[in-house]
Amino acid sequence: MKDKIFDLITFGRSSIDLYSQNIGADFVDIKGFDAFVGGSPLNIAVGASRLGAKASIITGVGNDKIGDFIINFLKKQNVGTDAIPRINGARTSAVILGIEPPDKFPLVYYRDNCADNQVTIDHVIDANISQYKILEISATALSVEPSRSAVFYATEIAQDHGVDVVLDIDFRADQWKDVRSFGLMVRALLPKVKIAIGTEEEILAATLQNAEQISIKHQQISAPEIKGNLDASIQKIISSGPEILIVKRGSKGVSIYYKDGQQQDVPGFPVEVLNVLGAGDAFASGFIYGYLQGWSLYKACRLGNACGAWVVQKPGCANDMPYYKEIMQFADSRGGLMPNEKETFMVH
Amino acid sequence: MKDKIFDLITFGRSSIDLYSQNIGADFVDIKGFDAFVGGSPLNIAVGASRLGAKASIITGVGNDKIGDFIINFLKKQNVGTDAIPRINGARTSAVILGIEPPDKFPLVYYRDNCADNQVTIDHVIDANISQYKILEISATALSVEPSRSAVFYATEIAQDHGVDVVLDIDFRADQWKDVRSFGLMVRALLPKVKIAIGTEEEILAATLQNAEQISIKHQQISAPEIKGNLDASIQKIISSGPEILIVKRGSKGVSIYYKDGQQQDVPGFPVEVLNVLGAGDAFASGFIYGYLQGWSLYKACRLGNACGAWVVQKPGCANDMPYYKEIMQFADSRGGLMPNEKETFMVH
Amino acid sequence: MKDKIFDLITFGRSSIDLYSQNIGADFVDIKGFDAFVGGSPLNIAVGASRLGAKASIITGVGNDKIGDFIINFLKKQNVGTDAIPRINGARTSAVILGIEPPDKFPLVYYRDNCADNQVTIDHVIDANISQYKILEISATALSVEPSRSAVFYATEIAQDHGVDVVLDIDFRADQWKDVRSFGLMVRALLPKVKIAIGTEEEILAATLQNAEQISIKHQQISAPEIKGNLDASIQKIISSGPEILIVKRGSKGVSIYYKDGQQQDVPGFPVEVLNVLGAGDAFASGFIYGYLQGWSLYKACRLGNACGAWVVQKPGCANDMPYYKEIMQFADSRGGLMPNEKETFMVH
Amino acid sequence: MKDKIFDLITFGRSSIDLYSQNIGADFVDIKGFDAFVGGSPLNIAVGASRLGAKASIITGVGNDKIGDFIINFLKKQNVGTDAIPRINGARTSAVILGIEPPDKFPLVYYRDNCADNQVTIDHVIDANISQYKILEISATALSVEPSRSAVFYATEIAQDHGVDVVLDIDFRADQWKDVRSFGLMVRALLPKVKIAIGTEEEILAATLQNAEQISIKHQQISAPEIKGNLDASIQKIISSGPEILIVKRGSKGVSIYYKDGQQQDVPGFPVEVLNVLGAGDAFASGFIYGYLQGWSLYKACRLGNACGAWVVQKPGCANDMPYYKEIMQFADSRGGLMPNEKETFMVH
Repeated sequence: MKDKIFDLITFGRSSIDLYSQNIGADFVDIKGFDAFVGGSPLNIAVGASRLGAKASIITGVGNDKIGDFIINFLKKQNVGTDAIPRINGARTSAVILGIEPPDKFPLVYYRDNCADNQVTIDHVIDANISQYKILEISATALSVEPSRSAVFYATEIAQDHGVDVVLDIDFRADQWKDVRSFGLMVRALLPKVKIAIGTEEEILAATLQNAEQISIKHQQISAPEIKGNLDASIQKIISSGPEILIVKRGSKGVSIYYKDGQQQDVPGFPVEVLNVLGAGDAFASGFIYGYLQGWSLYKACRLGNACGAWVVQKPGCANDMPYYKEIMQFADSRGGLMPNEKETFMVH
Repeated sequence: MKDKIFDLITFGRSSIDLYSQNIGADFVDIKGFDAFVGGSPLNIAVGASRLGAKASIITGVGNDKIGDFIINFLKKQNVGTDAIPRINGARTSAVILGIEPPDKFPLVYYRDNCADNQVTIDHVIDANISQYKILEISATALSVEPSRSAVFYATEIAQDHGVDVVLDIDFRADQWKDVRSFGLMVRALLPKVKIAIGTEEEILAATLQNAEQISIKHQQISAPEIKGNLDASIQKIISSGPEILIVKRGSKGVSIYYKDGQQQDVPGFPVEVLNVLGAGDAFASGFIYGYLQGWSLYKACRLGNACGAWVVQKPGCANDMPYYKEIMQFADSRGGLMPNEKETFMVH
Repeated sequence: MKDKIFDLITFGRSSIDLYSQNIGADFVDIKGFDAFVGGSPLNIAVGASRLGAKASIITGVGNDKIGDFIINFLKKQNVGTDAIPRINGARTSAVILGIEPPDKFPLVYYRDNCADNQVTIDHVIDANISQYKILEISATALSVEPSRSAVFYATEIAQDHGVDVVLDIDFRADQWKDVRSFGLMVRALLPKVKIAIGTEEEILAATLQNAEQISIKHQQISAPEIKGNLDASIQKIISSGPEILIVKRGSKGVSIYYKDGQQQDVPGFPVEVLNVLGAGDAFASGFIYGYLQGWSLYKACRLGNACGAWVVQKPGCANDMPYYKEIMQFADSRGGLMPNEKETFMVH
Repeated sequence: MKDKIFDLITFGRSSIDLYSQNIGADFVDIKGFDAFVGGSPLNIAVGASRLGAKASIITGVGNDKIGDFIINFLKKQNVGTDAIPRINGARTSAVILGIEPPDKFPLVYYRDNCADNQVTIDHVIDANISQYKILEISATALSVEPSRSAVFYATEIAQDHGVDVVLDIDFRADQWKDVRSFGLMVRALLPKVKIAIGTEEEILAATLQNAEQISIKHQQISAPEIKGNLDASIQKIISSGPEILIVKRGSKGVSIYYKDGQQQDVPGFPVEVLNVLGAGDAFASGFIYGYLQGWSLYKACRLGNACGAWVVQKPGCANDMPYYKEIMQFADSRGGLMPNEKETFMVH
């Protein structure tokens, strides 16, 4: 990773995220929405940039004002926007979200014919992935062509040029005609992935055998309930290619699984939850930042957990990612990243 | 129209309308949006209902929270929702709008694979159009199948059962693969239409010969600039079928064109403009209400003009339609609906 | 019609027609197919050309060998091919047909994403319709965009330039997502049509109220059974616009219906049937040829009937259309076109 | 492979193949076509069945007479048809082909919305792949969803149940929106493949870096010219997963590449060529039959070469596959399968 000019390029969804201004209100009674930006890979690029990394994003926006809105925001966040094509005839994605803590966060995706699904192999070629240390991919980009082929192409380029591939097993059930395709495409990509990250539900989804295992309540597309054997799923994922699988467990922190069978639990930072959306992306941005510094995986995950804890207390995702100084103060005030100095495993 | 149980059923678009809370701000600087509902036929149904008419709407919503939001609002407005199917696999429409008075109102339509385009002939059959006095149609519903066939079917049913057809020559250029198709479909429908309503631009659009005549600035989809000969276009429309064509001229009011060549100008009510969107729909709801009362066209148009003036002072569309009492007070305070008692033409 | 350079331009389907070489064989036992060309408007253009008319066709072919095959054939038939665009990315239509006389003629249409459905308004503009005396349209071109808009545009151009519009109420049930759309689009077009032609089944289809009225046996797409009141349907069609409706009744000949309520039966020429496909198109080509000569409708229909009788004895459609001399000999040998000189009505 | 009930199940394209009856004629002069069946995996299943294997096919056919035609043929060939769903709303594939030896074999695919692309994961589940010794896949089934996911699912089932996966790197350029997607999907599948088979052109296509490398002359979709470094491409394929790569070299026979770097050339049987189409599939059926008998790869390839030589002398593909007795006589009359008894490598 030494000779690379830039740190991180993410690939996938981007959107205007419209969050209810009426916390706790039933969706039909909402009076207004705050205008944020979002999409897992966008959140991660912004989070990493705020922490200090040189980050860019490969995504697509339409030739519309929402596209302007997103690009304007990214530029203010020092996230590179050169790899964001304007897709004529396609619309910039949008998401409309209700906030009913503690457990209801309904959301509606406007992703029919969306611009970020229209990223092509040629757009990937233009993105110069070989100049980055890490390529982070959102699995939702595998849901349709041409972005599916573009993802496979991007990971091959990354492999050929020594760029580490991080896969966020980002699962949005309503984006797949057959939800079982999600796991099939993820597993086809995993041999080229170094580090995979997912929630317990996403790991179950990535090894799903039949559609009946999934149920979605309160239109919480981002938090489906999925039945299955989690341990078996974790083993199936880790044996399919990646060196490391990080399982996100919410307030409990994360667990790191290694190819050789070892496992490490990394505790989280307990806080009061306002909005869980974006917490996983905050984790990824913190983890990736630590990984880029050459920290142990344990320490990198601790920073990730701190970032996640920071964001669940805020309404937005990308807009509320922490800056380096403030997240370190936050961590220090809660025992620090390495409370017991007990880290043991090193990678790289 | 005597033996009908209900007054008005409208047909076409419905959406959540998200209006900038930062009046005058450049789009990229918007911080939040007010949550209203909109769509021309929805606005008209709500406006007519508030004035006192028994109104319903034929539209489609998705199986999502935005659909709940719209139906909940309509029920509160006493607009009938029995003819609104939930369309699985399609999304409720959304519109995101900036407000930069006096002349920039950019908007972004989320209408790819939208539910209101998925209304079918069977949905129209279920709507019992024969029980209404007026069927009001939004021309945008002609842009794609199956709603296009459903519109033609609805107008035939209306004709067969003595229901007056009012066509709003609602033109949204980005909803048509070939903008010339708009006029072709409108003109194919006009033989079955009694009263057509449109802005000057929409009338030019409905007689468009080549796509180069259109230009759209500031992404103001609802207000394109179109070159052409307006008088010739008006004659082409009125000779294609309808008994009456009403041309909306903004603050100048409207002009009524009759098949026999007569014309009548109906002045507007001068007010300060906050947001022009929805004004035309407010006009239609007022006009239709007056028409239902058996008023002269002149008087009905005056009420329409009053409603339009009322709404341009407000941020929303459907949400800010006037009630009967308040609009009559508004009109009376400005000289009344019939200042000179000079009305001459009667229809029905 | 006097000042026109050319006689006839048809608009719609074109295909390679592959007819079983094993007459009477069950479809699964077919060993080979004869290679003909077909498609109603193509057949009519070829038939009219063979009789002596200056004919062209507006259709689309793919950038493939089947397109070459069709264009090569048309050139040999002196049919103008300047209005046939090559549509990249779309396939030239194909039809595969079994022949099991007397009553089973199963056929399989290859029309998914076919080139003749991709004809646009711009292609129509290039076709110079104003230079022809007659525009003949196949109603199947109304089934999808962009050819649907192109048909409406073509009929408007024809009307504006004194070109008579003949509509073949060509019904292919499997080409319509909702079969009721067929009649809706036909009826929307009829106000611009001078002469409509259809079989009894097609006239029922054009006034269809519910899909259950249709049944198709032995995959005979071109000969559905449709329940309904034929007299009422004829009245609905003739009152919707055209001056004349010609109902094709197979071996019984045709009936001419006039707007003023008059009706005239024109007897056919009894022959032994080999293949009914193409008979209706042969009728249209003969009728149009007679109409172009200024003959009475009766006499023109007699020539049409003779052409139909000629073609049912042959395996092919376009390939077996009669030349002027041979069809006149055929008619003369069977009593001539005007056996009793009893024709009474004149149009033009 | 011991405990399996059946020998071979193939997966992918099936079609009616219409071959010119006018050998050598320019396409536009063709008078008729012989009706055969085809599609690479169908040909292979038929070929293997005729040699003596218990073979089935997973493909899709429409609810049409062409579907009947194909299923009727397969039943006569003792090929299992239980895994062939009837796909409503999709058409059975068709191919129309000219024959102009020695080097022009233009063909036109009718595959828009075709039934064999509509095979789903559920269809694969119904196919009971675990009961077969070999799953043979045609790479064209990777071109679109849902058959792409179905292929990935099928290979996973095969791996989980000890079924050897043979991949035919079947490349049809016009079936891919971006031809580079072909190689990306093939390479994503290769880790699950035991034996890959392809022509030199197909191997170049599977490692294609840019679309300009491909050119197609005389509409010979099945024989594109592709520029590239063949040795590098072979190494890239073999290192991507399979134990064995067999390169088909036409009349020169085939070459076997092993993961450990060894290579073995297997000479062909020189004959006069009538129609090259189907030769590769004949090879695959012969090779697979030999492999199933536990023969050396060399001997299995020799049988494959004999079958290929047999078929190039015939007009058809599936219809002209050899039976065991006749192909052994053919081989014996030309020196036998193992002329020098020099085989050395064994697999299994």
